[in-house]
Amino acid sequence: MKVYLAGPEVFLPNAREALDRKIAMAKRYGFTPVSPGDLAVPDTETRRERGVAISAINELLMTSADLIIANLTPFRGVSADVGTVFELGFMCARGCPAFAFSNISRNHFERVSDLHRGQIHLGEDGRHRGPDGLSLENFDMTDNLMLDGGIAARGGVIITQEVPPDRLFLDLTAFETCLKLAADKLLKTAIGA
Amino acid sequence: MKVYLAGPEVFLPNAREALDRKIAMAKRYGFTPVSPGDLAVPDTETRRERGVAISAINELLMTSADLIIANLTPFRGVSADVGTVFELGFMCARGCPAFAFSNISRNHFERVSDLHRGQIHLGEDGRHRGPDGLSLENFDMTDNLMLDGGIAARGGVIITQEVPPDRLFLDLTAFETCLKLAADKLLKTAIGA
Repeated sequence: MKVYLAGPEVFLPNAREALDRKIAMAKRYGFTPVSPGDLAVPDTETRRERGVAISAINELLMTSADLIIANLTPFRGVSADVGTVFELGFMCARGCPAFAFSNISRNHFERVSDLHRGQIHLGEDGRHRGPDGLSLENFDMTDNLMLDGGIAARGGVIITQEVPPDRLFLDLTAFETCLKLAADKLLKTAIGA
Repeated sequence: MKVYLAGPEVFLPNAREALDRKIAMAKRYGFTPVSPGDLAVPDTETRRERGVAISAINELLMTSADLIIANLTPFRGVSADVGTVFELGFMCARGCPAFAFSNISRNHFERVSDLHRGQIHLGEDGRHRGPDGLSLENFDMTDNLMLDGGIAARGGVIITQEVPPDRLFLDLTAFETCLKLAADKLLKTAIGA
């Protein structure tokens, strides 16, 4: 069973090493992992063509996969990396089981509240809003409801935990919990304990 | 032909009005528009269940649609709203034509560079990195390559423009250009000029 390993690890200084650790761990749980960067990118004339080529490879890898485990740890802001989120939506549309994790445990509402330094008010329409007037989702969810809802609808879960800041994109404890749960549910094997 | 109108307008103080303006405009170009909030949300016991119910409705609306026009204007940070991005990935996986717009014209690389106040260095591996060590995509793209690449692969484009800050999520000029292009390509009609 092929698992697509989505996440912002591709942006790390030691990206290859970080991806390889996830790949090795996924194999130990009985999965065949695929992840961004697995295939060589063909030569292109422009930078934009190169970006489009990488996108096409990642879509091909996703189309070959049976499930996704997405790293939704907030990236450069309050929400998950948008590349990872695109891939999560892509795999949900394909009807694939979806699991996710985040190495920040404060939920979406709390994180957006933090962004506004707590300056949140309850509007007449019953919605909480920041100083910019934009409403905050308040659904006890890890991120935007399309992410949490899409995962729940496909039988998956989002595992969250708190890690030291320097391990934000490196700690794989929550990722390993996803692998365990996915293996128990989809592979019906009993690995680890 | 049904078009799914994805975007962060749902968070505006005048969300219903903003969505209705987009719906009316889409109809003028010959489309049957659907957008988040079109259907009533059933009563639920918990906030989380309500979030899951809204997600299910939005997925149902997307599954009924033939194409997507996504508002990718950066939201609470350097990238597009993740709910919108999930929906873009979802519709791309379904093989639907995808169009998008952004009311900020600086590209992804420039915006992440701004986030780091220009403190970007070129690493030994040929990648630009911020002070946090994370690499910046440098593909002359509007956002992460999965978004731009997914749209390009489905024959769509991303229209960008600059608008006054107080019109960031309200100006529909770029949205209307998407409608024109989509109608020309998919409806083969000649509306507007």
